[in-house]
Amino acid sequence: MNKEITNEFRFHHIGIIVRDLNAAIDRYNSFLGSNNHEYYQEFVRSQKVKVCLVPLTEGTYIEFIEPIGTNSPVYNFSRNGGGLHHLCYEVEDVEEEIQRLKGSMKLIVKPVTGLQNRIMAFLFSKSEEIGFSLIELIEKK
Amino acid sequence: MNKEITNEFRFHHIGIIVRDLNAAIDRYNSFLGSNNHEYYQEFVRSQKVKVCLVPLTEGTYIEFIEPIGTNSPVYNFSRNGGGLHHLCYEVEDVEEEIQRLKGSMKLIVKPVTGLQNRIMAFLFSKSEEIGFSLIELIEKK
Repeated sequence: MNKEITNEFRFHHIGIIVRDLNAAIDRYNSFLGSNNHEYYQEFVRSQKVKVCLVPLTEGTYIEFIEPIGTNSPVYNFSRNGGGLHHLCYEVEDVEEEIQRLKGSMKLIVKPVTGLQNRIMAFLFSKSEEIGFSLIELIEKK
Repeated sequence: MNKEITNEFRFHHIGIIVRDLNAAIDRYNSFLGSNNHEYYQEFVRSQKVKVCLVPLTEGTYIEFIEPIGTNSPVYNFSRNGGGLHHLCYEVEDVEEEIQRLKGSMKLIVKPVTGLQNRIMAFLFSKSEEIGFSLIELIEKK
């Protein structure tokens, strides 16, 4: 199937690493002037992180991410202040997109069960100046 | 006016610093499998940057940002590889939100004319671990 001129990517979230999930949510609410605390939370075992999805627009989110334990892949990032970490897009077939992108992006987390029991993977741009270097792909629900 | 429990913030874009705007657009299109090049571009004089708005979802964007000249505020960031830089929200009144947020955030770019001739400002979180540290506010159209 030729995917070159289709555009099946749908932006899902921006991932932000924090030290403390609840503190981050409180501060974000304070920033927005919001009292809402009814946000989706989950422990994503494969990545050793607790995450919270805070709606950004319809169907898109900020994903606050707190590492659980020093062997979480994002532990060091969180200890260096945390911050903006990756962009995540929903796709029909994670494996297929990895194959399509393998010339330009390096697979750094192979397909595994992630958020909401969906297959996910992380890719990193091989270009030094791609700007949006770290990308998560997750399968559509 | 009590803004504490209102939520008038509307996510507008994520800013990504790049060395070369056109190269970044090409790579992003390649990533998406898109041939579209009809993106809004502008030179934002006050920040000494060229920007391009690539639609993310309805009314939200990736803003690719290329510094123009070594005295652009984001020149060094671009030379250190660039990447995810800030989140931008539309608000009714930039000055009013700055006043509301001044206890928790430091004003680092005072209100000035920015993108699309709209008043904009940059704030930086005073907390060490707010995660979403650098925020742009722009007035609604």
